[in-house]
Amino acid sequence: MDARFYTFVGGETGLWQVEEVRSVRGDGLQTPRCLDLQNTHLATLPADAVWALRGAASHQRYTTRAEQTALAAVQAPLGRVESVCAALIPIRKNAAWWLLTQDERRAIFEERSSHTTIGLRYLPTIARKLYHSRDLGEPFDFLTWFEFAPEHRAAFDDLLGALRASEEWNYVEREVDVRLVQKEIMEPA
Amino acid sequence: MDARFYTFVGGETGLWQVEEVRSVRGDGLQTPRCLDLQNTHLATLPADAVWALRGAASHQRYTTRAEQTALAAVQAPLGRVESVCAALIPIRKNAAWWLLTQDERRAIFEERSSHTTIGLRYLPTIARKLYHSRDLGEPFDFLTWFEFAPEHRAAFDDLLGALRASEEWNYVEREVDVRLVQKEIMEPA
Repeated sequence: MDARFYTFVGGETGLWQVEEVRSVRGDGLQTPRCLDLQNTHLATLPADAVWALRGAASHQRYTTRAEQTALAAVQAPLGRVESVCAALIPIRKNAAWWLLTQDERRAIFEERSSHTTIGLRYLPTIARKLYHSRDLGEPFDFLTWFEFAPEHRAAFDDLLGALRASEEWNYVEREVDVRLVQKEIMEPA
Repeated sequence: MDARFYTFVGGETGLWQVEEVRSVRGDGLQTPRCLDLQNTHLATLPADAVWALRGAASHQRYTTRAEQTALAAVQAPLGRVESVCAALIPIRKNAAWWLLTQDERRAIFEERSSHTTIGLRYLPTIARKLYHSRDLGEPFDFLTWFEFAPEHRAAFDDLLGALRASEEWNYVEREVDVRLVQKEIMEPA
């Protein structure tokens, strides 16, 4: 199995407790009790799970070197102690998007929708990791994972609002918003 | 299963007879008798097969609209009656390539290596289809399939020579060249 493979499992176990599952566009997903992230591609749905979404951590598709340098200067790691809030946002883009050429997709993504520029504004507050699913034949094209501290919930909603209002989002045909809080970790007695 | 999923199976069956399997760079592949292309992702190696390579037909990663228009004007379909010669060229690029940003990869791919421009020169003589494998955790990143008539064997070798001499090919760490001829199809009596 490839180290870049991940499966998000909505079920009865996992480090994250599900607060809400909301359909933003198109079909939603069932609301599980917990979310588990496994560093493998599960071939079958585990017992007690209601859904499993697979993705691969991969190279960037649109970022330029200048943007990458700006991002790296302020980037935040996942797993910060204070980041007890998270969101998993699976997205599928429509056929029209995938028929565009690279220069057309890039122009919509950044020059006209400021995707990276918007994300930059919320760094290092909101940590983010993208998983690619489209070439795996999954129901979504991308799974984006976000982590932040509870006091930044409103900032996170602003970030999503700015992206959803962009031209790029005209090409989103399915989007689900899964909100999570970390389970309390019991200290050993 | 997704309609964009394919598996090339080197074994004892299939429409194509293997002429030669040659390692261009890095580890080679065993030489099977035949090659079969299946429109699915096989999970296990079929009996009698020596290797199976999986890929997904996907959107283009570097082509601009202007290039796409130029390509579409002269593009050739697969499956032409006279195209009884074929080649399967699996390639893996190195870690340095995948750490480059999109603008850097595009500049090497086209502005400095003329990948699309070189391919255009051989259209419609050489038909081509690309399959993406990298995010599937496969041993190769890309599988490229070519079809052409026997009188264009030399032209095909020229095409490969031009690509292999380009700056882009400095990033290729594994390449195998599988040459094939179509099996004679028996007419019903």
